[in-house]
Amino acid sequence: MPYEFKTERRVEFADTDMAGIMHYSNFFRYMETAEHGFYRSLGYSVVMNQFDPPVAWPRVHAECDYFKPLKFEDLVEIQLLIKEKRSKTLTFCFRFWKLGQSPAIEVARGLLTVVCVTHQPDGSMNAAKIPQALAEQLEVAPQELLE
Amino acid sequence: MPYEFKTERRVEFADTDMAGIMHYSNFFRYMETAEHGFYRSLGYSVVMNQFDPPVAWPRVHAECDYFKPLKFEDLVEIQLLIKEKRSKTLTFCFRFWKLGQSPAIEVARGLLTVVCVTHQPDGSMNAAKIPQALAEQLEVAPQELLE
Amino acid sequence: MPYEFKTERRVEFADTDMAGIMHYSNFFRYMETAEHGFYRSLGYSVVMNQFDPPVAWPRVHAECDYFKPLKFEDLVEIQLLIKEKRSKTLTFCFRFWKLGQSPAIEVARGLLTVVCVTHQPDGSMNAAKIPQALAEQLEVAPQELLE
Amino acid sequence: MPYEFKTERRVEFADTDMAGIMHYSNFFRYMETAEHGFYRSLGYSVVMNQFDPPVAWPRVHAECDYFKPLKFEDLVEIQLLIKEKRSKTLTFCFRFWKLGQSPAIEVARGLLTVVCVTHQPDGSMNAAKIPQALAEQLEVAPQELLE
Repeated sequence: MPYEFKTERRVEFADTDMAGIMHYSNFFRYMETAEHGFYRSLGYSVVMNQFDPPVAWPRVHAECDYFKPLKFEDLVEIQLLIKEKRSKTLTFCFRFWKLGQSPAIEVARGLLTVVCVTHQPDGSMNAAKIPQALAEQLEVAPQELLE
Repeated sequence: MPYEFKTERRVEFADTDMAGIMHYSNFFRYMETAEHGFYRSLGYSVVMNQFDPPVAWPRVHAECDYFKPLKFEDLVEIQLLIKEKRSKTLTFCFRFWKLGQSPAIEVARGLLTVVCVTHQPDGSMNAAKIPQALAEQLEVAPQELLE
Repeated sequence: MPYEFKTERRVEFADTDMAGIMHYSNFFRYMETAEHGFYRSLGYSVVMNQFDPPVAWPRVHAECDYFKPLKFEDLVEIQLLIKEKRSKTLTFCFRFWKLGQSPAIEVARGLLTVVCVTHQPDGSMNAAKIPQALAEQLEVAPQELLE
Repeated sequence: MPYEFKTERRVEFADTDMAGIMHYSNFFRYMETAEHGFYRSLGYSVVMNQFDPPVAWPRVHAECDYFKPLKFEDLVEIQLLIKEKRSKTLTFCFRFWKLGQSPAIEVARGLLTVVCVTHQPDGSMNAAKIPQALAEQLEVAPQELLE
């Protein structure tokens, strides 16, 4: 499914804080790990040197809504969904599902907007069109999965 | 000024990633450090055991817009501003200013919404009114600082 | 095998630093993840509330020798080996094997000494004997695996 | 004093774990921050592009002994001491002093060995002599400070 990717992760001790729950900043690390796993599932690394010129994906916006805490050793599924696809940017939605009970509980939901860039010889970056071979593999998720 | 707090920080090596810039998740760590410094400046710790019952501040929403990257050893001022004050929640705005040039450049801007809670005997949390002694010290920042 | 545990992990973007390699502090996070996976494989969590009194495992010594760097998306096997078992302490050896080539390359080797403690009513900790049911499952690894 | 450097840091919420204390891996981050501050105090960045060829400092060994925990908002002084200076390597000792009481308490002590390298055109690294201008500024600390 080119609009979705799922990966699992178990909350580690170092992910927690003294409140006994996963630190809120680590949800953003988990999102990125899902994003990169998604690229790998399509045959790419986020370091996309197979394109000429190579492209990179700086983040321009990130957000997260927290519904329930995650605790040490909780098993969580991170569901990546493509929410928006423009010529130069992608917006991913991430739904965090705590597993281990039925049905799984959505504990958080995030958004991440990344922009496709190429590097200039002087080191600066320019927004660039998403390479066509990649763009053709990406599809916006059905609206009902995003609600 | 009860609507504002400023703190400085130098980007550390461990804050960077292989793209050579501060990892995007670390902006959320920096926000929280400013938030906690703000509480300290008012005479509180975020672990507010001086209230009866004690209150805590789980995060319910966090976001960040990234304008420019931060690099290793960059000196950054984090400007906390109170954007919204409700009976049970606070929303902080964080403006990240890269120092070392004049004028300073705003490299990122974040939002963080926290909810005041008390813990029940069974461990669950209930949203609670912000303790009056604290609430009286908090003021929403002038709109022009938030634009 | 009660003296050994193996787990795999892929180096994440947030694990790297601007030198393009995994930050040296993250090897200690990986070690702990293997340690906790080992306890889980024996039916325990590191938060050992099933014992009366409950025991915890503060770290008293940690070290790592770095032979080769790990890079983003490298797949690494962390091999935990029990190096020393005393009445109140355990010392684990961790060998980091970079996979993806044959034979795998050992890129780092660490040591971690943890002490079994119980908590006093006043919050202080006392070193305590490792609970017998756990101690009986732990065996020191053969010397040739540790060389 | 060319054999010593001191810096202070306040333990942050994100530095703690669910045991309520600073996570053991973060002592290694703090060590590195002191190391880099030391270089800055001498007029260098750890990214030493002012030498021809530029040199870098990969870590080859790191260790830490933990005596007492650090808690959220504890103020800690990190005292860097040069323990050993060879032609191509440096070993730093780091003593962590918890401030706020008199006398300060040493809560942990670490060691870090770094090797001076230059990069080959093919990306590989070679151990290299520490540049003379830097080496002349470095002195091994008196033994009594290291005991």
